[in-house]
Amino acid sequence: MQLQLKTWQFVEDYLKTKTGIIIPIGSTEQHGPTGLIGTDALTAEMIARGAGEKAGALVAPTISVGMAQHHLDFAGSITLKPTTLIAVVRDTVVSLARHGFTRFFFVNGHGGNIATVTAAFSEIYAERSMERMSNQPSIKCALRNWWDGPGIKRLSAELYPTGEGSHATASEVALTWYKYPETIQRKEMEPRIAPTGSFADAEDYRRAFPDGRIGSDPNQATPEHGKRFYDTAVEEVARDYAAWVAK
Amino acid sequence: MQLQLKTWQFVEDYLKTKTGIIIPIGSTEQHGPTGLIGTDALTAEMIARGAGEKAGALVAPTISVGMAQHHLDFAGSITLKPTTLIAVVRDTVVSLARHGFTRFFFVNGHGGNIATVTAAFSEIYAERSMERMSNQPSIKCALRNWWDGPGIKRLSAELYPTGEGSHATASEVALTWYKYPETIQRKEMEPRIAPTGSFADAEDYRRAFPDGRIGSDPNQATPEHGKRFYDTAVEEVARDYAAWVAK
Amino acid sequence: MQLQLKTWQFVEDYLKTKTGIIIPIGSTEQHGPTGLIGTDALTAEMIARGAGEKAGALVAPTISVGMAQHHLDFAGSITLKPTTLIAVVRDTVVSLARHGFTRFFFVNGHGGNIATVTAAFSEIYAERSMERMSNQPSIKCALRNWWDGPGIKRLSAELYPTGEGSHATASEVALTWYKYPETIQRKEMEPRIAPTGSFADAEDYRRAFPDGRIGSDPNQATPEHGKRFYDTAVEEVARDYAAWVAK
Amino acid sequence: MQLQLKTWQFVEDYLKTKTGIIIPIGSTEQHGPTGLIGTDALTAEMIARGAGEKAGALVAPTISVGMAQHHLDFAGSITLKPTTLIAVVRDTVVSLARHGFTRFFFVNGHGGNIATVTAAFSEIYAERSMERMSNQPSIKCALRNWWDGPGIKRLSAELYPTGEGSHATASEVALTWYKYPETIQRKEMEPRIAPTGSFADAEDYRRAFPDGRIGSDPNQATPEHGKRFYDTAVEEVARDYAAWVAK
Amino acid sequence: MQLQLKTWQFVEDYLKTKTGIIIPIGSTEQHGPTGLIGTDALTAEMIARGAGEKAGALVAPTISVGMAQHHLDFAGSITLKPTTLIAVVRDTVVSLARHGFTRFFFVNGHGGNIATVTAAFSEIYAERSMERMSNQPSIKCALRNWWDGPGIKRLSAELYPTGEGSHATASEVALTWYKYPETIQRKEMEPRIAPTGSFADAEDYRRAFPDGRIGSDPNQATPEHGKRFYDTAVEEVARDYAAWVAK
Amino acid sequence: MQLQLKTWQFVEDYLKTKTGIIIPIGSTEQHGPTGLIGTDALTAEMIARGAGEKAGALVAPTISVGMAQHHLDFAGSITLKPTTLIAVVRDTVVSLARHGFTRFFFVNGHGGNIATVTAAFSEIYAERSMERMSNQPSIKCALRNWWDGPGIKRLSAELYPTGEGSHATASEVALTWYKYPETIQRKEMEPRIAPTGSFADAEDYRRAFPDGRIGSDPNQATPEHGKRFYDTAVEEVARDYAAWVAK
Ligand code: NI
Ligand code: NI
Ligand code: NI
Ligand code: NI
Ligand code: NI
Ligand code: NI
Repeated sequence: MQLQLKTWQFVEDYLKTKTGIIIPIGSTEQHGPTGLIGTDALTAEMIARGAGEKAGALVAPTISVGMAQHHLDFAGSITLKPTTLIAVVRDTVVSLARHGFTRFFFVNGHGGNIATVTAAFSEIYAERSMERMSNQPSIKCALRNWWDGPGIKRLSAELYPTGEGSHATASEVALTWYKYPETIQRKEMEPRIAPTGSFADAEDYRRAFPDGRIGSDPNQATPEHGKRFYDTAVEEVARDYAAWVAK
Repeated sequence: MQLQLKTWQFVEDYLKTKTGIIIPIGSTEQHGPTGLIGTDALTAEMIARGAGEKAGALVAPTISVGMAQHHLDFAGSITLKPTTLIAVVRDTVVSLARHGFTRFFFVNGHGGNIATVTAAFSEIYAERSMERMSNQPSIKCALRNWWDGPGIKRLSAELYPTGEGSHATASEVALTWYKYPETIQRKEMEPRIAPTGSFADAEDYRRAFPDGRIGSDPNQATPEHGKRFYDTAVEEVARDYAAWVAK
Repeated sequence: MQLQLKTWQFVEDYLKTKTGIIIPIGSTEQHGPTGLIGTDALTAEMIARGAGEKAGALVAPTISVGMAQHHLDFAGSITLKPTTLIAVVRDTVVSLARHGFTRFFFVNGHGGNIATVTAAFSEIYAERSMERMSNQPSIKCALRNWWDGPGIKRLSAELYPTGEGSHATASEVALTWYKYPETIQRKEMEPRIAPTGSFADAEDYRRAFPDGRIGSDPNQATPEHGKRFYDTAVEEVARDYAAWVAK
Repeated sequence: MQLQLKTWQFVEDYLKTKTGIIIPIGSTEQHGPTGLIGTDALTAEMIARGAGEKAGALVAPTISVGMAQHHLDFAGSITLKPTTLIAVVRDTVVSLARHGFTRFFFVNGHGGNIATVTAAFSEIYAERSMERMSNQPSIKCALRNWWDGPGIKRLSAELYPTGEGSHATASEVALTWYKYPETIQRKEMEPRIAPTGSFADAEDYRRAFPDGRIGSDPNQATPEHGKRFYDTAVEEVARDYAAWVAK
Repeated sequence: MQLQLKTWQFVEDYLKTKTGIIIPIGSTEQHGPTGLIGTDALTAEMIARGAGEKAGALVAPTISVGMAQHHLDFAGSITLKPTTLIAVVRDTVVSLARHGFTRFFFVNGHGGNIATVTAAFSEIYAERSMERMSNQPSIKCALRNWWDGPGIKRLSAELYPTGEGSHATASEVALTWYKYPETIQRKEMEPRIAPTGSFADAEDYRRAFPDGRIGSDPNQATPEHGKRFYDTAVEEVARDYAAWVAK
Repeated sequence: MQLQLKTWQFVEDYLKTKTGIIIPIGSTEQHGPTGLIGTDALTAEMIARGAGEKAGALVAPTISVGMAQHHLDFAGSITLKPTTLIAVVRDTVVSLARHGFTRFFFVNGHGGNIATVTAAFSEIYAERSMERMSNQPSIKCALRNWWDGPGIKRLSAELYPTGEGSHATASEVALTWYKYPETIQRKEMEPRIAPTGSFADAEDYRRAFPDGRIGSDPNQATPEHGKRFYDTAVEEVARDYAAWVAK
């Protein structure tokens, strides 16, 4: 149930029995020679929407640009500064809380968002903690990376014993190929499995990972893999959402 | 050409001959008893993508949440504070400028964004004006509301001699029905044509416009109208974009 | 009735029957070879004060520096960044609202302020909309450019069939010459009527408009014209203010 | 020489031989039962302009609203938050520095501004210190309260052996009466000399100083005193400015 | 080698051969019925200083207040908002980078800091990534929790098979008792091992963890344990620092 | 009574009879050829703790980094921007106010902090003044430089008839030598008594004061002097604190 495709009266009715909402958040950044710049937003969005359908939950519009400063040396990458992203998450949650939403479940497609979104939750709570807003309903936020469930981890280990990697991963490329088959392309990459390591700013990242990948061999991906990742992630995320809002 | 569906190497090639990009920006807010909460983002997105295709221009991911504080008394509406939206627009443009983009053409679906996005452009320019960044390429931003072309104005006058309105308009509803026919619904509304007037904050808005519409009779909309609006807007926006980047 | 020339007890009495206030806002920026750097603040101030007298309204001190980043390549121009100006407008309104003022009527002398001041109003409303401050009196803000009334438009068309322009206009120069006759000077300008067009940052502006004017021939101005503009603007602004606070 | 009454070409010429500018800064706040709300801005402005004339220095437009949170429980008072005022001072100085000004001499009319404006200077310097902007000309800022010269102190001691006070002072009231004789009024005040003491926020201030004055008996003021204060302050401020820019 | 106990000339010499610095960061928050409010800052500080001695590294002053909004319902806890802490970390690193430091190793005593400090690193990098500051030396930041080494994990498992917990842990209490034996106190706690779970804002935290502990039985701690934790942590942190700066 | 060494239950008890707290604030900056970089934080801390002991007051953790932009051209100096320091002071006070503290007594070791910390107090009050938070207990903040008492002034005049100076002063060096005797060192300095004068940013400071001292001859200091300064400052600060909280 996409919030964008509903009316305000629908939402008013929804809030009579439910107060949870799913919010997809991704990134817009290079994903290696063949991965899509939108990978992290597109995967978060498809899985959030699938899970929302399954769980009977509203799904907010996707926050498509996240914290991706380290990718800025590759053309097309866009970042919000952490403080900007904190403000975006804060305004989004505060707006929805006004209507009576109390549980905000962010489905995340980008590892680089985790710290900043977690800090944003604290920023939201801090306002309340510092003002002792005891007459307001308590709100809670959670961040759920789509790849964090045991099923996904199993699947990934099964399909890609090596070269899943941590950026431009085989699994995320598979997901996008499943939903956007017109974008499938394979290129020879050197080395086949990209190097791993840490990084600081954009120039440091590019020095370490010249074609953008970290630890991955995305040529292993297939759209059929993508379907399996999709089904598994939707299943697991929907289940986790349902359990979390029920707490 | 959606940026999200391209690779960084594609963008690097694109920048060898072009430096313009289209950025759709909308809003997430009530659109009357039958209009979609996502109307302004969805219309901006569909028209921006259509125009990008026609003009051979890259289209960035949609900024789906805009400045909609006045709609917050209707369930489901989300706003960014103006200062937050300014930061989002600023970071987006500065990120892209680093790659060599110099012309940023925002296709807008929401009247409430105009002042803030224009202020954001000034914020971006102000940094450069105050620092005399003369060794950097000059950048320019433009905001183009999809409904501002003469063709759209003509079509709107032809199809809706009365009751086009200024919020939850017949034309924007038609556009969403054309692309999302599964969302079509009509309800009796009282009065048939909503009142007009001004407003301040969310509670003031709701007092003046109890079902959310301003001046409109969206029941006049049809998906066929939507197609005509779509074709016209895409045509006009693509033409204006091409003329603007060529200046 | 200038707020600056009153006592707090006078204001306390005023608030027993009235809750509106006029706030002049201008800019400090080049106005071509002969126009005053203070033109926009001085014209806003004189008209706001005249209108306040006529309408029996208090007039706050003038916000003399506005959003003028595009003029910074001409000596003497000063700008606030949009986010700074938003904070100034916000603090001003919130301070006055504490005393019981509820209607804030900004008389504006500078086109470049419009977007930012409008965004500032939204910033003020957004705080209230996001917090559901229903136990507070509703406040409203309006922005009124002194040149926007029909009388001014008629007068301008009558006196300057060509060369009124949009920056360093003949009419604003006339207004300053009426009130500050010691500053009258005429210089030959080349071309007589300045070019028109758009602009981005300060360096872009100067490239396009080398002597600072846009579309104007200010040598047409006379102090007698200035008196007619002044009388008309005061009349129209006072009338609009009275109508607006009465709503 | 008021910057507002000059052209950009005048300023360009001025900068060929001088790089200093005087910036008046005041406040908009209650000044007891008879003192003007604009006292601090009006006195700073008149003295700054007088001193500018004497010293051949440009005088920027007055920053009329300062840091006056403690006066907000008296109708008509307006404050900027310290962080807002810091941004205003920063933008003003940075704008003028772009043109080649290097010495910024703030003539201050309000004790409550001192800490914040001093912090603003540090904010400006901090940007430069943290970035090692060694290729930029060095800039310096100074704050000069009009009442700080020995002549003023002598005059005040001579005219008001008791009851000069520290807010709504006899001397500042005298200054406004000299320049704005139409505002002269005397009222019996109880006690004749107001209490002294410290204060925190607005409500604390009002508890301690119920009619707004601190330590003063403004009924002692006369316009003739005002002239003497004016002449002395102009003389002393002009001299200090000249000495400071010459360093 | 504490930075606070050195002279600037010592630091200038140090920078001729080394460019790394250790920065302790903790928190000021309740630590259960017997744990010290300063636990997280004191443990980070003692271990950072010990490791600095061992590694021959300068140690900056401790950032004693961190992100602890969730503890605010217990008296004495202090928090910085995440955006404030980001600014503190940013200014600290930028100041030190000016002198030539390039490696910033934060030794952390508080789990609640991790997300915000990581976001702060991204904020610092983002400024550089967005501006393409290629002419500046590359800087890198790392965050090292004192409890993250294998030795500490082993020791904790050995000494506290149950009841180590995650807040007011037995190990951190032991560390403070080792260094501050005058603060040792034991109290009966109910239940002996505190509950575990998640939390949102301060009131939510207190509901879930009424005496402040999470999952721990701090009465198991002894100062002798503290010495073992101290020695192990110093050893491991020093080794990790040395390896990291050498990369 | 250091807050860091207490439990939350201790603080809860303390608040039953007392609502004041002492907060040491210093700086991390060069102090001449022999003075410690931590001088201002260490002296504020030792005196605050001594005074807290004497007055039976809790002492918060030291804010060790202050506003020291002007020292950044000397290795090892760290600064917070004024706006950052304002946020730190604000969050600290607001956190503690939530628990019931109402009197915040900052013991300061650095002249460069005075303006910014005073502005921070106003920022805190301004929030309350603008929102008319009349249902909250009134809070008050004070800043007390350790060197401001008459006893210290007498002692300084007695021990150092010349060369006390205003930065890297003989008295502050003596204090640090008393508490950190292992850091004692003397070096020949040229001139023996450093020059005096004003300064703007970091580079301006270094031009004027090449070895970092202002007006001082720190070689006069002895640890015995330090003890006398310490005893006197503790006595005076404790007395002033007690008087202030009793008001
Ligand atoms: Ni990814
Ligand atoms: Ni719309
Ligand atoms: Ni103008
Ligand atoms: Ni005054
Ligand atoms: Ni801890
Ligand atoms: Ni010092």
